[in-house]
Order: sequence, then structure tokens, then C-alpha cells
Amino acid sequence: MANLLRAATWGLFSWRGYCSRGTQGRLSAGFVEALKAIVGSPHVSTAAVVREQHGHDESMHMCQPPDAVVWPQNVEQVSQLAALCYGQGVPIIPFGTGSGLEGGVCAVQGGVCVNLIRMGRILELNPEDFSVVVEPGVTRKALNTHLRDCGLWFPVDPGADASLCGMAATGASGTNSVRYGTMRDNVLNLEVVLPGGRQLHTAGRGRRFWKSAAGYNLTGLFVGSEGTLGLITAATLRLHPVPEATVAATCAFPTVQAAVDSTVHILQAAVPVARIEFLDEVMMDACNRHSKLNCSVAPTLFLEFHGSEQALAEQVQRTEEIIRHNGGSHFSWAKEAEERSRLWAARHNAWYASLALRPGCKGYSTDVCVPISRLSEILVQTKEDLEAWRLTGTIVGHVGDGNFHCILLVDPEDPEELLRVQAFAEQLGRRALALHGTCTGEHGIGLGKRQLLLEEVGVVGMETMRQLKATLDPRGLMNPGKVL
Amino acid sequence: MANLLRAATWGLFSWRGYCSRGTQGRLSAGFVEALKAIVGSPHVSTAAVVREQHGHDESMHMCQPPDAVVWPQNVEQVSQLAALCYGQGVPIIPFGTGSGLEGGVCAVQGGVCVNLIRMGRILELNPEDFSVVVEPGVTRKALNTHLRDCGLWFPVDPGADASLCGMAATGASGTNSVRYGTMRDNVLNLEVVLPGGRQLHTAGRGRRFWKSAAGYNLTGLFVGSEGTLGLITAATLRLHPVPEATVAATCAFPTVQAAVDSTVHILQAAVPVARIEFLDEVMMDACNRHSKLNCSVAPTLFLEFHGSEQALAEQVQRTEEIIRHNGGSHFSWAKEAEERSRLWAARHNAWYASLALRPGCKGYSTDVCVPISRLSEILVQTKEDLEAWRLTGTIVGHVGDGNFHCILLVDPEDPEELLRVQAFAEQLGRRALALHGTCTGEHGIGLGKRQLLLEEVGVVGMETMRQLKATLDPRGLMNPGKVL
Repeated sequence: MANLLRAATWGLFSWRGYCSRGTQGRLSAGFVEALKAIVGSPHVSTAAVVREQHGHDESMHMCQPPDAVVWPQNVEQVSQLAALCYGQGVPIIPFGTGSGLEGGVCAVQGGVCVNLIRMGRILELNPEDFSVVVEPGVTRKALNTHLRDCGLWFPVDPGADASLCGMAATGASGTNSVRYGTMRDNVLNLEVVLPGGRQLHTAGRGRRFWKSAAGYNLTGLFVGSEGTLGLITAATLRLHPVPEATVAATCAFPTVQAAVDSTVHILQAAVPVARIEFLDEVMMDACNRHSKLNCSVAPTLFLEFHGSEQALAEQVQRTEEIIRHNGGSHFSWAKEAEERSRLWAARHNAWYASLALRPGCKGYSTDVCVPISRLSEILVQTKEDLEAWRLTGTIVGHVGDGNFHCILLVDPEDPEELLRVQAFAEQLGRRALALHGTCTGEHGIGLGKRQLLLEEVGVVGMETMRQLKATLDPRGLMNPGKVL
Repeated sequence: MANLLRAATWGLFSWRGYCSRGTQGRLSAGFVEALKAIVGSPHVSTAAVVREQHGHDESMHMCQPPDAVVWPQNVEQVSQLAALCYGQGVPIIPFGTGSGLEGGVCAVQGGVCVNLIRMGRILELNPEDFSVVVEPGVTRKALNTHLRDCGLWFPVDPGADASLCGMAATGASGTNSVRYGTMRDNVLNLEVVLPGGRQLHTAGRGRRFWKSAAGYNLTGLFVGSEGTLGLITAATLRLHPVPEATVAATCAFPTVQAAVDSTVHILQAAVPVARIEFLDEVMMDACNRHSKLNCSVAPTLFLEFHGSEQALAEQVQRTEEIIRHNGGSHFSWAKEAEERSRLWAARHNAWYASLALRPGCKGYSTDVCVPISRLSEILVQTKEDLEAWRLTGTIVGHVGDGNFHCILLVDPEDPEELLRVQAFAEQLGRRALALHGTCTGEHGIGLGKRQLLLEEVGVVGMETMRQLKATLDPRGLMNPGKVL
């Protein structure tokens, strides 16, 4: 009964483990045999526990398990799986590390979950071309470990140790994007299995050039398509030189406005800051407790600079001038790797630090992004809204991009609070839209923001997206119910 | 007869002024009246001379005039024009400054040329958000003149003073892209009139955020679509801070390989070079004569650095070390604006300097782009090919991107030489494809590279592009005959 109430109040939202269907899949025995014939028996499961593990991501969206989970080991198997499923009218849901935040892997119509994690090879490393080709099982951290000795790295860092192909599918970004760009900027080519099973190389097979004006930008169309247009089976990524030196810093501000103004001035001064993250005083309090920091409980910027020793000295000096001019204080500089790691670990653990503020609660993260001139305004308003809605929430953001997250803490046993969280999140989305912003900077639309997407891009935009979807997936079987 | 021979040997290639049809347009009087009712009589022309002016760009593609030229003054008129033409089955060809290099404005099926240049407003400047909204009549130089006092600039610089919306349509880039990216990286939003007349805002009306994960990347789809999916009637662009200081330099190398190796090492050292341009010894000889330079007649790099005084000093020092290590010499540094302008004027006039090598000849520019590790190989091969085909050509390239142009000089009275130029260009395109490159880094596919596009993206890629085109332009009337 409590479960039903929850599902009812939240619509698609609920907690993991409360499944919308029974524990039996709906696929015929013959179909499951056909799956096994393609990938091998050990790589197919219809066990309830496995299906439930694959029916949710890290978000609060209700677990909606697929009818079967398969683990292909190469692209030919993915093609055969897609052809089989498409021919039989069975939905296909791509799955990577399951670290998404918008319910992108929920099997809202059942179907076959294609877990790509056993395709885990780094297919090709071309250090002299600053590029690498990875399969979906390769995560961000695994790639950077592999690259350790070649002087290059892949900078896009959404926090989670996600699959790089999954990051491409989501259009992920994160803390380094202010300097190095998002996945949209760092994917050179994708191998995609289209719904019917055909293999597409978005920039042409084996191509790894840096720029092109050759026809429609198919790579750009598939980056951020959230598995609704095809299965990404390999990604060619652009690598960057490892910085010669790195300096990290934190500093405290009297107001949110002062922190944001500093950010704008740093960007205007063309200081090539690598990371510039905002944490509000509630978040700082949580970080102090959780990560044993001793920072001021005040609006705070976490910064990082990459460059030569000499360049860093100048960047640091300029930044300090700008920040002091805006009333910032309590600088804490970290140059050694260990110190920096401690600082950034605190930032990366912001999610868990937030959860620890109200033990037993679940977290929900908003993800709006606005033009930087409106950032201060929406941050202040968001803090007022939190109070008005009687919600506990921390704020942490990639302010150099205009993107921030409000991590809301929700008691899963309190359906009325769930309603307030949902209302708050929608209000925040609409506030961002009213300020020329977007409802999602990096988490994607998934299940919960489809109405906001319509409001964001308008009727013609939405219809254009629907036309593209219908063209590439005429039967509507690729990750159905997401984005549109 | 000579004209016929020319058209026959070159297929779609020929010189301006040799029109494929007579001087009379094929539109009914009633249709022309309907055009006039939309934009006003003074803004419609069916005069032969006007139509011929609009039947070609800067390339060697045969002049193919439209049946009428119209100059709308606002987006509503563009919508009405598109609805009228689409309803009547009349092709629509968008036209900006006509500075394209791949025949993108040739009216291969006749129709109405929509010259957007009288929509010339800068609609919205938001310096604090580093963004601006421009109509199609605003050129790159006009925008930068307008921005002069606000500390920002728009860095994408293809050489020609093109319309910024036209640059978006082509997916242009140029000399600054190694640092600031191409149009793909710097367009935040587009207003597009779709073939039937509906208005699409690719990122949602009025939006100017820096990053988003909201639905399919429609902006990315329209950038580089060469007018085949719709008419771009406004572009929201990302601006950058004007660098505090600038230093330019040239230096000479014993070999092509040494110049390219230096480029790779500069990139590996993460020196944030703003421009790095390669000119071969033939090009340098031409520049010396045309622009009264006194540089060595040797493979040469033109460089530019942007940053603070202190940062520049370090960048320059590091670059000089790398270049000397690779055998470079004859450095010439230019710090003052006047000196720099003289140097870059020489680079920007490379086209005319090349033409002056063989007076009376026409120029044709290739545009391949390869992974940077293959650049030296293809440059050396290209120079050998020039000799083998007995052609005169200069080489100039955006080597930081792996992109270079071979400017071929052709006697318009020599059809046999035309054939050799065509064969050379196709061979070069295929050489680039074999090295994991693209047939066009920045000029687009237009009319002449459609076969190479198929070879580049493969059957599935081509079919996917055709599907997208058929979805957005089911009657095939938007700039027909281009790209696909």
C-alpha cells in the first residue's frame, strides 16, 4: 500500500526495488533461446534479481526491469541482437555502468536490456593524434589509468566512473568542462548499431580527424541521444596533454553573488581556469563534516589551474586579485597531489556528504544551466525556494558553465515530501527556462523532464526531434519512453 | 563550342558566366507577383544579370542562375517565401555573401534564391554572457567592428568576410580554430526557417546557455548542413575575451616534416597557440612577391599567440625552443599591431598571391583534413603529385587542425589542364580518406565532393544522411543537388 501511494504520487518516480511488474519476464522461451544463440548462454539472464538490477540507475526513478538482460561481447553480436529484437517488436535498452541520473535505463515497456560492459577493450590508441577508440565497457578512470604513461588524458569528468560510451550517450560533462569542453566537444566518431542492426560510423569507419565539414554532423546527433537512436558500441575520443603542473584552491565569499561575480570576472580576464566549482554554505557544512575539511561555512569556490609552473603562478595571482576584489577570503592553496586529492575528494563526495545531512534519506539532483549573467539570481532564488518548500538541499555547481545542481534530501517514507521535491524541481526547471536557460546541463532528459523539454525547445523543436526519432527508429523500440 | 567542351569535361565545373540555361527564368508571372507581395517589389529581381550574379560562388563551379532573386527583410517574410515556394514545388536556395568555395549557391534546378543580406541587424548583444545574436546580413568583420569596445570578439576567421549565418551553414573554421574551435563549437542557437515555412529555434527560442543535454542536438545538425535543411535567419554565437596581448611570428624550416613535427610538439607541450599556419616554399615565394615580404623561400610556419604579456613571453620561449630543436630558423617576431597586420595580411592574401603566379589563371582550392600524425606524409605526397600531374599549386594550411589547402592554378582556356586538376583533387581527397581523414575540413561538400562523401562516411552513413534530409525536406526543394 505504501508502495502504491508512492508510485501514485510520483508517477514514474519511486525507489529502487519496487517494481512495476511481477518478477516474470514476458519473453517467449523461443526468443530467450534465440538471444542465447547470439551471445552464448552464460551471457543471458532472465533472473528476477538481475533484471531488477538493470531496471534502475542512480536516480529516484522507479525500478522498471527489462524482461531479459544480455551481455554481448562484440559489435556483431550487438547487431544480431538489435536485428532480432527489432524484427520481433521487442524494446531494446542499452546499459553501461547504470550511473545515470534521469532513469535512462528504466525498461518502461519491458524488453531486452543490452548490457555492453563486457565489451571492454581499448581498441586503438593513437597518442600522436591525441585520440583513442574505446568500447562501452571502458570507464573514464580505466581509460585514464591506461593512458598514465603516454602524457595524455581524457578530461571529461562527471564525477561517477561512468562508461565513456554511456557518457557520450548522455552528453555528459562535469568539473573540467569550463576548460576542456563536454562530451559534445570531445567525441570524434561513434560506432553505432542502429535499431535494425546495421552498423553506422558517424564520421566514417576509422576516421579520427579533428574537424570536418563533410555532410550532416551525425556524431553530434548521437552524442546526447540517450540510447533512443541506437546502441553506441565504440567511441573515438579526443585526448589532451597532461598538464605540466596543477594547483587547486578553495576560497570563501560573503555572498553567493560575490562568488558568481568572481567567476564571471575570471572568465572575462581569460584566465584559463580548468575547474571552477561553487558550493553553498549548506554544502560546505556537509563537506566539512563528511570529508573532515576545515573550511569556512560560507559560499565557496573550488578552483583548479593547469599549466606550466610559470603560467600557473600568473593564473593564481590574477585569480586571487579578482577574488579579493569581490570580497573573497580564506584562501587555501593545494599544490601537492595529495593535498589536491583531498580537496577534490571532498568535492567529488558532495553527493554522499549531502546524504549524510539527513541519514536514511534519498537524494535527488536538479541540473539546470543558465546564461552566466543570470546565475547569481537563480542561485539566490533557489535558496529561497528551498525554504519556502521546507526542503533540505545543498547546492553545488559547475559555475564556469552556468550549470548547478541542487541535491534534495527526501524521506522515502514521506510521500508528501516527495511531492514537494517534485514541485520544487519543476519550478526550478521553469525558472531556468525563463532566464534563457536549459532544464538539463548534463544529466539528460530521461524520463522526468520530457514536459520541460517541450517547454524548452517549443512545439516545432519537439516535433523536429520526434521526426528524427521516427526516421531512425520507425518502430519506436530503441529505449522507448525516454527524451520525447 | 569551347564552353560546351568545358562543361563536358568538368561536369558541374566551369567558369562563371557560362550559364547552363538561357537568360529567362521559368517562373510564372503570377508566382513572381506573389514573391513581390511578400517582400515588396524592390526586393525581387528576375533580371538576367542579377540571376547570374547569384548563380555562382567564389569557386570554379559553373554558374547556374536561379529563376528569381528575393531579398526578405525579416524572418516572417522568409517563412512566407518558404511556404510559397514549397507549396508550389519551387526550389529554394539561401544566399549570404556568395563567398563559398564548393558551389553551394548554384541553382542546379533553378528556383528562388533567397538573398538574406538585407536582414542585417545585430539583434541582441549580451556581453556579460559572452553571446550575441546576429541576422544573416551581419558579416564576421562587421560583428567584430561592432564589438570593438566591449572587450569581446568572435574568433572564427575563414579569411573571407563571410556572413556569420553562412559560416554556420557551411561549418566554417579557419586560422583561429586550433585555439577557439570552429563554427560547430561557437554556435549556441540558430533560428531556422524550415522548408515549409515553420520557424525552428534549434536550442529553443531566446536560449543562450553554454551547454545542455536537453534532447537531440539540433543546433549541431543544422551547423554545416549547407542550406539543405532550412534557411538560417539568425545565429546566437559565443564570444571570447579580446586577448590582452598578441604576438605573431614566422619561421622557416628545412623540410615540410620539420614544420609539421614542430606543430605536433607545440600541441603536445600544450602551448595554447592561437594560430599555426603552414605555407610551403612555393606559397612563400608567391607571398614574398605579392605582399612584399622578405621571408625565406622555404616551408614556413606563421604563428600567433594570445594572452597576458607574461604568458606570451613563456609561450614564445617554449615555441622557439621546440622549433629550434626541429631545425627551424629565421624567426621573425611581430608584436606591434601594424607589423602583425602586415604579416597576416600576407597570409590572408595567399589566394591572390597564388593567382598572381600565373596571371590569367583561375584558382581551385582543395580542403582535406587528416589526423595530425599523417599530415607530413600527405603534404609530401601532395607536392609529388603536383609534379606528376604537371600542375602549379601552392600549399597553405591550418596545420594545428590537420587541415590544408592546395591552391591549384588553372588556365580556363585549357580543358586538358582542367581535367588534370579534377583528377588531382579527387586523388588528394582519396589519399586523405585512406589516412583516416576527411575530404573537407571547412569548405563543405557542395556540388563537387558528393562521391567523396559517400566514400568517406560509407553506405550506412550516406543513407542516414539521406533519411534525415528526406524527413526535414520531404519534397527535396531546399538547396537541391548539394551535399547528398
